This record gives sequence, structure tokens and C-alpha cells, in this order.
Amino acid sequence: MSDLPTRIHIHEEGPREGFQFEPNAVPTGRKIELIEALAQTGLQELQIASFVNPKRVPGWADAEAVVTGVRKRPGVSYTVLWLNEQGFLRAAGMDGVTLKASITSSASETFMKLNQNQDYSKNAEVQNAFMRLYREHEVAFVRGAVMATFGCNFEGNVGVSKVISTVERIQEIAAAHAVKLDNLTLADTMAWATPQSVKRVVGAVRDRWPEIPITLHLHDTRGLGIANACAGLEMGVTSFDASVGGLGGCPFAGHRGAAGNVCTEDLVMLCEEMGIATGVDLDRLIDAALLAEEIVGHPLPGAVMHGRSLGQLRRKIGATPPAASC
Amino acid sequence: MSDLPTRIHIHEEGPREGFQFEPNAVPTGRKIELIEALAQTGLQELQIASFVNPKRVPGWADAEAVVTGVRKRPGVSYTVLWLNEQGFLRAAGMDGVTLKASITSSASETFMKLNQNQDYSKNAEVQNAFMRLYREHEVAFVRGAVMATFGCNFEGNVGVSKVISTVERIQEIAAAHAVKLDNLTLADTMAWATPQSVKRVVGAVRDRWPEIPITLHLHDTRGLGIANACAGLEMGVTSFDASVGGLGGCPFAGHRGAAGNVCTEDLVMLCEEMGIATGVDLDRLIDAALLAEEIVGHPLPGAVMHGRSLGQLRRKIGATPPAASC
Repeated sequence: MSDLPTRIHIHEEGPREGFQFEPNAVPTGRKIELIEALAQTGLQELQIASFVNPKRVPGWADAEAVVTGVRKRPGVSYTVLWLNEQGFLRAAGMDGVTLKASITSSASETFMKLNQNQDYSKNAEVQNAFMRLYREHEVAFVRGAVMATFGCNFEGNVGVSKVISTVERIQEIAAAHAVKLDNLTLADTMAWATPQSVKRVVGAVRDRWPEIPITLHLHDTRGLGIANACAGLEMGVTSFDASVGGLGGCPFAGHRGAAGNVCTEDLVMLCEEMGIATGVDLDRLIDAALLAEEIVGHPLPGAVMHGRSLGQLRRKIGATPPAASC
Repeated sequence: MSDLPTRIHIHEEGPREGFQFEPNAVPTGRKIELIEALAQTGLQELQIASFVNPKRVPGWADAEAVVTGVRKRPGVSYTVLWLNEQGFLRAAGMDGVTLKASITSSASETFMKLNQNQDYSKNAEVQNAFMRLYREHEVAFVRGAVMATFGCNFEGNVGVSKVISTVERIQEIAAAHAVKLDNLTLADTMAWATPQSVKRVVGAVRDRWPEIPITLHLHDTRGLGIANACAGLEMGVTSFDASVGGLGGCPFAGHRGAAGNVCTEDLVMLCEEMGIATGVDLDRLIDAALLAEEIVGHPLPGAVMHGRSLGQLRRKIGATPPAASC
């Protein structure tokens, strides 16, 4: 495991991902309460709202109110999601938000057709229009984002060559606008990744574009999220999307198929126990996860939030941290 | 990942572990129903009851009735747990049970003192007495079992040298009775393992005793169970204890600290997707996990049971399995 990084960066997506998904309306004040609690944990980047059509996603009708209401903490970046021009313009009009743009494509064209009614050609048009908009608004950060990187519910497993050609399409769009990608997010949109395929795909992408940092966006629908993150760490990946408490997923029968992101506390636990710094205070983060659980009113799928951190146990018994003891 | 095995063996412990833990009494008939469903999944070894003091563990007051009631399926081994002579004699009196004995010690003497009121010297006496009993009853299978292999809530992390000396103590007892250990179970009793420590400890134990097959008994209290199992697979481990649905653990607040075993379906999913045979029909096993959830009457922590198997999705869309497609 010689490629293990010494430090990783976590992009916390729980508020955006979780509140969008919750069946019961979460009051604006409680969304703000969770976001402010998360900002106190050491997490440095929080995705706090989704500027989407309130008729389609009523859970984010209050996006402006949430973003305005959050007391911004110095040193923390607040990001938001948008899916079309109108959403971007709403986001761009907000103070205190770091605009991070994506050039998005999918390693499965079938998924893109079914999910967004776009083939690759239409998607390139859409992404090019976005890029012109981003230039007008001087958006400083542009990442490439690959959906369905490891597999697709409609195509099956996705091979490495399709991922590479998808990144090539993204790079063509970036080049046409004289943009150098700041990051490449490999998203396991439908939870098909295994530790093996994470290693294979990350290795192939890194070999081809060694200069672009990779972020893994992993879903835990089938229980492999943390194992897949670990495979990413072993490949030297230093950036992960994650969701506090696993917000967005839910063990309830009525929510079956809910594809929560990999749980932030469980990821932090994995890293800290392996000597990889996250900058996060795990016990504070567990408190935030418990707050999230209270706010949504049902059990969240996170594990360490229910099992206590090892750091807490160590302090209780005066034991040394893992690096020193084994 | 060149050490990945081609096939693993799973010892299913869900019924024993889960029903012991459930706060509400599970009727004998429903226990039998789950066990019989599990026997139809391809699992070849099921731990179906616990012969313990019914006053202390009322959930297993019906151990005899369960063992007698289960229609035994040819090709499936049915094992049981006991903790003292009386429990062993009850177990030994049952038909259709495969008696598998353990010489048990703990890599944390503190844990053994607190949990069983035994120091190493007292434990050796107890284990020696067991061994005499096992010889009288011609028990054919004896494994070594190390508790607290990776860490202890009362001692902190456990270093490799303590695991090695614990196995040496177990080997001394075995040697005194002219027994060759059939297996060595490394148990992460209090969920302290990480993928790193699994690799380190398994590597050290295997280097020292290359002839003894290793079983990993992993708890998922802090969300690292499957990642730890994956680390074991990467070290060539071919035998795992697991629990259907994660029975024994529970995401409910009232059950916090519940340390469920690694979830059988999620482990099977991990293996099958990486081309490692388990002999188990994952979709049948998911049905058994959903039955277990219905029987206990609350959500179980398993993931793939709620997210559908990839095999099911592949069949629906006519996609090829992973080995062929990537």
C-alpha cells in the first residue's frame, strides 16, 4: 500500500444530496443548522444547496434562503449544484458561494439518453453552451465529470476504454474553450464499482492524464462504498465526495434503491485509522451525523455514527493512536 | 491483487448471532424458516443455535427445538455455539450437528479478564479441560480462535506481536493434546481492524504458520467490514464468517454499539463481482436477508439486500458478467 496518500480532501455533499431526497420537507432553519455544524468539523468544502426546478425538486425550493442564511465560516468553501442555465444564473447571483463548474459526460451513452435525453452529440452542444456561460461569468474552476464510470443499470459493466473515450470527449470540449481541467471526477453513479475496477480505471485514467487530480464519487447502494474508497486510496487518490451519515441513502424498505454517497464519517474513520489526515474532527462529525439523523427523522445508514469512534475509546482508556501502537 | 483466491468458504452465523441479540422473542418456527431458506442459497455451513444459559440469553432457550426442527439439507453443515461444558454436552447430544471445537484465547488479556474473568493462565486451564472433553467425544475439528485480534476497547490497538504470542499459546494447548489445528480464526471482536492491519496481521500469521488456513471473523460496527474482508481476500484468505443481512447489528438508536458481523450478501456481492466464487446464489440469499428482516421486524444493516444485485440487473438487460466485459 505504498501509494497511500498522507492527506485527503473531502467534498461534503450530504446537505445537497440528502435534503433533495428526503420525502418530508426539512425546514430551512434545520438545513442551515446542519450546514453550520458541518462547517465546524474541519470539513473544508460543503455542497449546501441545489438550484434546480422547485416544481421537480420541492426539497430545494428554498435554495436561496439556505445559502443566504448560512453564516459562512472562513476557510470553508460552499458549493452548490445546478443542472441548467437558469439554475447556474440563480447560483451565480449568490454571495459566499464558490462556483465550481463541470464538463459532464457519461461512460454509458444509454444512461445519458435515458436520464437526460441527450446522446453524446447533443451533450457536447449542451456542455459547450455551459462553457460559454461559465466564461462570461468568469468561473475559475472547471472539472471533468464522468457519470456511470464503472457500470450502468442499462448497459452493464463499463470497460476502461469507454471511460477513456469519455474523458477524451470532455477534454475536447475543454480544449475548444482553452480550459485546462482542474480535476476529474469519476462517479460510480449507479454503484457498479468494485475495489478491482476502481484500481483498474483509476490506474488507466491516471496513466493517460497524470497531471489531472482525480476525485472519486462513490455510491454505497450495494455496500462496497468504503471498500471502493480504500481501493482509491491505495491508488493514491486524494479527493473524495462523501455524505454525512450517508444522507441520501436509507435502510427503509420504502426507500429501496436509494443510492447514498459513501458516508463521510466512515471514510474519515478509515483514513484516520490508516494514518491518512483528513483535517476533520471525527467526533464532531459524528455529532453532526447524529444531528442529521434527528433532522430527517429516520435512521441513516452510517456505521461509525452508531458505533462510536476508536479515538473516543482511546482517549477513555489513555491508549496511543494506531500509528504509534502497531 | 494477484493473491485473490478463486473461491471462498462462508460460515453463515446470522441465525445464531442475530436471534441471540434480538430484543423481541423470535418464535422457534420462524428461526427454522430462516435457517431452511439459508440452506437453499448454496451456503454450505450454517451456525444455527447457541447452547448457552437460557437465563442469560433467553433468545436461545429453544436451541434444542430449533436444531431438532430444522430439516437438514444434504451437503450443508450445521454448527452450533457453546461456551461451557454444559453447553457442549447439550450440543453433543443433538443429531445432525457438526461439532466444531475451538481453542480460544484473546490478543488482549484485559478483554479476557473483563469479559470472561480469566487471565491467560486461567484460560489455559479452561481450554485444557475443554480439550479433554472434546477428545472424549471424539470431536474431529479443532480450530484456534483469537479474540480482539486487531484491537480492544480496553487496551487500544493490538500489535502483531501480541497476536503471534496468542497463537503460540493456542498452539501449546493444541500440542499438549496432540492436536493439529484445522483452522485459525482471527476475530475482530470489537471492530478495530482496518484494511492495513488486516493485511499486516494476516501476513505475519501466515508467514509463521503457512500450513494453517485462516478464517476472518469481522465485525462491521464502524463500517469497515467489507473493506477489511477485501483486504483479507487480497491476502489470499479463503474463509470468512458472515451474517445474513448483517443480523446482530442494527441501525436503530436503541441498539447503538450493536456489532453485527460483516453482511453475508454484501460479502458475496464483493466476491462474485471480483470473479471469486462463493457457491452462493446471491438473489436467493437476498431473499433470505429480506425474510430475516421481516422476522426481526426492523431494518437490517445489509446494503445489497436493499439495492438489488448487479446480476439481477444484468439479466434484465442481457448484459455479460464482469469477467467477460471488463
